[in-house]
Amino acid sequence: MFDTNLVVVGNVLAAPEWRRFEEPGSVVANFRIASTARRFDRESNQWVDGNSLRVRVTAWRRLAEGVISSISVGDPVIVYGRLHTRDWKDDNGNNRISYEIEASSIGHDLARGQSAFTRNT
Amino acid sequence: MFDTNLVVVGNVLAAPEWRRFEEPGSVVANFRIASTARRFDRESNQWVDGNSLRVRVTAWRRLAEGVISSISVGDPVIVYGRLHTRDWKDDNGNNRISYEIEASSIGHDLARGQSAFTRNT
Amino acid sequence: MFDTNLVVVGNVLAAPEWRRFEEPGSVVANFRIASTARRFDRESNQWVDGNSLRVRVTAWRRLAEGVISSISVGDPVIVYGRLHTRDWKDDNGNNRISYEIEASSIGHDLARGQSAFTRNT
Amino acid sequence: MFDTNLVVVGNVLAAPEWRRFEEPGSVVANFRIASTARRFDRESNQWVDGNSLRVRVTAWRRLAEGVISSISVGDPVIVYGRLHTRDWKDDNGNNRISYEIEASSIGHDLARGQSAFTRNT
Repeated sequence: MFDTNLVVVGNVLAAPEWRRFEEPGSVVANFRIASTARRFDRESNQWVDGNSLRVRVTAWRRLAEGVISSISVGDPVIVYGRLHTRDWKDDNGNNRISYEIEASSIGHDLARGQSAFTRNT
Repeated sequence: MFDTNLVVVGNVLAAPEWRRFEEPGSVVANFRIASTARRFDRESNQWVDGNSLRVRVTAWRRLAEGVISSISVGDPVIVYGRLHTRDWKDDNGNNRISYEIEASSIGHDLARGQSAFTRNT
Repeated sequence: MFDTNLVVVGNVLAAPEWRRFEEPGSVVANFRIASTARRFDRESNQWVDGNSLRVRVTAWRRLAEGVISSISVGDPVIVYGRLHTRDWKDDNGNNRISYEIEASSIGHDLARGQSAFTRNT
Repeated sequence: MFDTNLVVVGNVLAAPEWRRFEEPGSVVANFRIASTARRFDRESNQWVDGNSLRVRVTAWRRLAEGVISSISVGDPVIVYGRLHTRDWKDDNGNNRISYEIEASSIGHDLARGQSAFTRNT
């Protein structure tokens, strides 16, 4: 079957966290993103908040380096990646499920600011 | 901001459930879908299972009618819709979060079978 | 870089065409799909047609078989696949570019009808 | 029916062009993007170029301002928007069709560099 690709356009909820591993170049970064849809309400004749989404984003290697050096809490970003679930048990032995995006590309949203970009050499 | 649109290609995990409301034409159907990515493993030189995804799908009105009349457990389907989260508290008062796709289109995957289709009049 | 995945929800513009090759199981099917966005016009207070899209869809092997046996002109479908371009020269030697979706999944849209589905054995 | 949303991850082919209109704040920017898929070739046991895509991108208002101030030729970017077609006649009176993405979000790809971002006030 297929990867479940998706784009989330939203805001970074907290500063990214990261870990480096012994293997050279191996690093992973995580943050949470929030996105709220807007829909036009015909009764009030104005735009109102629709459904919202909060989800954890994981980035590896080069993308993790870009995230660590460039992204701060509150930044408006575009995240492109694959959605998947992870099964686990909580402290009471209940089955739980977590959702996560493994990102392949992340960028600051130029609809909401300006970016001075330096390409990797 | 934006709706978070996504496509999931996978299998229906259980027969859809549905409810009708008093308002004429108002009906909602739900089911869960599972999707497993396949990736090529260079060490074993073969395709292996990658990450998987399980998520709840909701359909309203005309789409709910199509789901109820057409979809059975195990069917291979394409689901297109918007991903969002819902916050709730469990019995112990812990904050919990659920993920759900509100579908706008659903179809049987013709890569995995044949379909005799009757258009709504 | 990446495949450019997309979903098109629309109508089949003409009956699919197909070719079989000598290699067993090798078959390709093509059709064109049209999709028209709807947007809410605040001045007239009603939904109106927005931009439209017409694009060629190609399916191979099992998916081509499903398309050939199941899809007719006018059918409402969901197409999921990869968008790419093809460069060519017209009769006057001008450079031309064509757009095509290589589909990985196609299904009848259950928002617009019912489907009796038979899974491949 | 629906907008056809898609993401293109690729490189900017030429410096963006733009026009301002008399209406305050009204500005449009255009550029072309190229993306080449990579696929793993089992015969040669290495990654090779797959299909490619070149397409025109249009941005309006705030997003156009961000593009004009931030994007240069060759930049690696993520583009999210709606794909549509435009019909026209060439000088010989032949029917022609052009494809265009009307972008809603664009960002530099942090998998390929670093970004110093300044949010709009």
